[in-house]
Amino acid sequence: MANSKFEYVKSFELPDTLLPNTWVVVRIDGRGFTKLCAKYNFEKPNDKRALDLMNAAAKAVMADLPEITIAYGISDEYSFVFHKSCTLFERRASKLVSTIVSTFTAHYIYSWSTYFPDAPLSPPLPSFDGRAVCYPSVQNLRDYMSWRQVDCHINNLYNTTFWALIQLGGVDNREAEQLLAGTVSGDKNEILFSRFHINYNNEPEMYKKGSVVFRDYELVEPGTHNAERDADALAEPLQHTKSQAEKDRKRRGKAPIVVQHLDIIKDDFWDRRPWLLSNKPGKVPKEP
Amino acid sequence: MANSKFEYVKSFELPDTLLPNTWVVVRIDGRGFTKLCAKYNFEKPNDKRALDLMNAAAKAVMADLPEITIAYGISDEYSFVFHKSCTLFERRASKLVSTIVSTFTAHYIYSWSTYFPDAPLSPPLPSFDGRAVCYPSVQNLRDYMSWRQVDCHINNLYNTTFWALIQLGGVDNREAEQLLAGTVSGDKNEILFSRFHINYNNEPEMYKKGSVVFRDYELVEPGTHNAERDADALAEPLQHTKSQAEKDRKRRGKAPIVVQHLDIIKDDFWDRRPWLLSNKPGKVPKEP
Amino acid sequence: MANSKFEYVKSFELPDTLLPNTWVVVRIDGRGFTKLCAKYNFEKPNDKRALDLMNAAAKAVMADLPEITIAYGISDEYSFVFHKSCTLFERRASKLVSTIVSTFTAHYIYSWSTYFPDAPLSPPLPSFDGRAVCYPSVQNLRDYMSWRQVDCHINNLYNTTFWALIQLGGVDNREAEQLLAGTVSGDKNEILFSRFHINYNNEPEMYKKGSVVFRDYELVEPGTHNAERDADALAEPLQHTKSQAEKDRKRRGKAPIVVQHLDIIKDDFWDRRPWLLSNKPGKVPKEP
Amino acid sequence: MANSKFEYVKSFELPDTLLPNTWVVVRIDGRGFTKLCAKYNFEKPNDKRALDLMNAAAKAVMADLPEITIAYGISDEYSFVFHKSCTLFERRASKLVSTIVSTFTAHYIYSWSTYFPDAPLSPPLPSFDGRAVCYPSVQNLRDYMSWRQVDCHINNLYNTTFWALIQLGGVDNREAEQLLAGTVSGDKNEILFSRFHINYNNEPEMYKKGSVVFRDYELVEPGTHNAERDADALAEPLQHTKSQAEKDRKRRGKAPIVVQHLDIIKDDFWDRRPWLLSNKPGKVPKEP
Repeated sequence: MANSKFEYVKSFELPDTLLPNTWVVVRIDGRGFTKLCAKYNFEKPNDKRALDLMNAAAKAVMADLPEITIAYGISDEYSFVFHKSCTLFERRASKLVSTIVSTFTAHYIYSWSTYFPDAPLSPPLPSFDGRAVCYPSVQNLRDYMSWRQVDCHINNLYNTTFWALIQLGGVDNREAEQLLAGTVSGDKNEILFSRFHINYNNEPEMYKKGSVVFRDYELVEPGTHNAERDADALAEPLQHTKSQAEKDRKRRGKAPIVVQHLDIIKDDFWDRRPWLLSNKPGKVPKEP
Repeated sequence: MANSKFEYVKSFELPDTLLPNTWVVVRIDGRGFTKLCAKYNFEKPNDKRALDLMNAAAKAVMADLPEITIAYGISDEYSFVFHKSCTLFERRASKLVSTIVSTFTAHYIYSWSTYFPDAPLSPPLPSFDGRAVCYPSVQNLRDYMSWRQVDCHINNLYNTTFWALIQLGGVDNREAEQLLAGTVSGDKNEILFSRFHINYNNEPEMYKKGSVVFRDYELVEPGTHNAERDADALAEPLQHTKSQAEKDRKRRGKAPIVVQHLDIIKDDFWDRRPWLLSNKPGKVPKEP
Repeated sequence: MANSKFEYVKSFELPDTLLPNTWVVVRIDGRGFTKLCAKYNFEKPNDKRALDLMNAAAKAVMADLPEITIAYGISDEYSFVFHKSCTLFERRASKLVSTIVSTFTAHYIYSWSTYFPDAPLSPPLPSFDGRAVCYPSVQNLRDYMSWRQVDCHINNLYNTTFWALIQLGGVDNREAEQLLAGTVSGDKNEILFSRFHINYNNEPEMYKKGSVVFRDYELVEPGTHNAERDADALAEPLQHTKSQAEKDRKRRGKAPIVVQHLDIIKDDFWDRRPWLLSNKPGKVPKEP
Repeated sequence: MANSKFEYVKSFELPDTLLPNTWVVVRIDGRGFTKLCAKYNFEKPNDKRALDLMNAAAKAVMADLPEITIAYGISDEYSFVFHKSCTLFERRASKLVSTIVSTFTAHYIYSWSTYFPDAPLSPPLPSFDGRAVCYPSVQNLRDYMSWRQVDCHINNLYNTTFWALIQLGGVDNREAEQLLAGTVSGDKNEILFSRFHINYNNEPEMYKKGSVVFRDYELVEPGTHNAERDADALAEPLQHTKSQAEKDRKRRGKAPIVVQHLDIIKDDFWDRRPWLLSNKPGKVPKEP
């Protein structure tokens, strides 16, 4: 029985290739996490278990997909960056997005009980949506990352003050909102300090800076590399020989994937980790 | 601290709206399931537990997303159909695909231990990718569904014979392949019957026909409705009043979601279930 | 000298295929025609020469591209419709749009002196832009055509009254605008009739209805065909044999291309010309 | 009479925005120019009148659209480059392509009689199609330009030799093809020189290098600017103040648009004309 009579329907699948030589960011977001937070009693303003679970899932995604260069997460969202030379799945948007979303979700559900041993999952289950965006230049990519980290800061300072007012100050949601309306950062820092003796600078780094996930190699001296210029100058997807690509893959496999809470807005982070923009694996640190 | 300096990066998010008034099929596929089958010792040619797990996840997706009209699954793939009038997520392709893939994955992982109590999951975890395809006419949509069901039949007849040769006939993979090279359905039926006394018609319906998931209402008499013509004639997304939409949603919520193994190629299936193509909820069957 | 070093740039050409089995409308619009009207002293509210020139160019486009089913023009815009089974240029949007825009422009410039013998062209020259839109069903397509014809009516009634007030009533632009603000059709008909003894119904058909361009065959009796239903039922691009396609092409070549000013909103126009929706050439009228 | 009933059809117009911060190349090609060459007896291997007409049309396009940075033409094709910061028509692909194709065609037809006074046009008229391609980096853009110029060289050397064999060597098309099969550049140079005393280097620059069209300002000393690095470093569309944009527009308007036949593969061309990559108007040369 031939299938040819119906096979014409395949021709309706239109291509969704992403422009070559651009950085691909796949950002995923929790669906309906406000309800989820309530259902499982997430702590306010930050639930360490929930963030650790997000980070564990992100690490697993990076281990599964060595083509990912770096990831950055805050709250219930995570951004995964493919190097501009990446040709995974022929750069088909739906393949890239769905694979990341699915792998992330799988690990989120799988690891839930590790981080919430006393709050077993029940339907409706946590889920995520995602989208892919292309950034042509290193500057665009870094501005994207900065945008997310500034958002982390703005939201966390607001939420920290908001929940301090409620949890420590005894006001209700509406009053807290009104007290914060129109305030700038300085005001919020002042409220925290003068009313609750909280120095915002001493808050945990994960809450203030979010989480950066990447393969860790030996740091280089700033000023000895110019990965950004090198990266922009790359005209086309790197045409490694196959054996070189295989070597790179092995070196990546050996590199530990780390989760850190660093400033990714300033140059220093990028200058000292040239492998992020160059896509050439760095030097694996020796065991001590 | 304003975020405006970096916010321009949002303008790089290009729209991916799907054409209105077309049927949207989101098909998801297991990633690397050949390895998975080996790792967890799936039975050949069909593993009932694995298919039941796929069906359970698909049912959960439909319960979460009442906008889905019908779903059809075979092996490690599932197709979910949104009615052509659907405006969920403003018909953004990446939102639709990622939401379905994520919800499906969440339930697949969550329910794994129910179906494989003796084979606990370990990384790398099962995951799925997906894509969206638009079909302009009812005929195109039905041809898509027929294409998948014919594929199910072709693959299952081949696999049933292939594994009978190996498991019952004692030949190895290569020999089985050679024996089947160039055979037509009749030949395979004959091999099954004459060599192994297997009547293919008596094989389980789920293996022969795949699984159809839909909301179940009272069947209508064939010939009393012409949903296909009605559906194609609809010029634009249905402009229900809000109260009507709310009523429809409630009626859908009450309808049981069923998994059946039926012929979806012939007209009968569609004629007797006009709600599938019309998007108007049917009559909920009375409790006996 | 090999070109291979640079040829990778071809991979940046992303596909822009239009969804199969949908009606493709390419609409072109004059660029900056307000200035053009002033420069060449177009008559108000309608310049017959300018409209005849548009129609001549549209006829030439249809003669050059037999794949076009029908075209409809008002003012400085023209819509060209490709049958949903059309596979010209593999349905690439930019090819379809640019070819129509270029052919139309070529004939507009070429024929200018025929219609404006006393107003030779000088740079900046008239030009047009264009876009392609897909419509999945016959109803969508007909609603598109109706939308344009209703627009023609609304604009022409307004403009006819507006310019009557100025040219015959002696008021200035601003006063005319104010007099018409908030009026409905009946009011404008009344102004025309009571103040200027103009019966709008007697205005030229071309101004009231716009221009329809199509291949003319023998009309059929209404009710004997149901082209709309037939068209929607077509599942896929028509798979003619090559000889049949060649015959069809010849018959189309023999059919006269006509410009008429008819109601295309009502069913009658379409019912009597089933070849428009069916894409099967009709019967060429015998010479008298 | 309201138009609202049909206006829903506008929602079928899907956006086709091009990715920001990328160089947009619109390439147009003559449609069926082989027939055209025969019909109007174009000279072989190059018809100076035809190329001059192409160049005149390209200059007119650049005068009409000051947003175009540079154009490059060979044979019956022309590439127009928009600076990566360009936001004309909100970067809608179909608007950009159709406007260029239409303006080019208008001038081609309009100026035909200037270049072919003895060969009046008759239908079917010359026409062009077009497409837009995005290039993320300066290197990609320059590689695109190099690709076209290398093509120009390869084709012209082949054609010059091919037609010398026919016109001077008295062989027929098939023999000429066979003589050239498998030859490299050196072979063709040798055939030209030894058999026909033609030194390919002395062929007209327009034929060997194609035509570059750009706004001409005072050349700068190589090495004093690094426009490429500057251009890639630009993170986003330049946010000029409106008054600055107006000044730039005026300066562009004063700059003469020139057609030259230069090497655009080597750095020198770009280094000495930093305004091409920087999008900042240069210094208008003083009148002598």
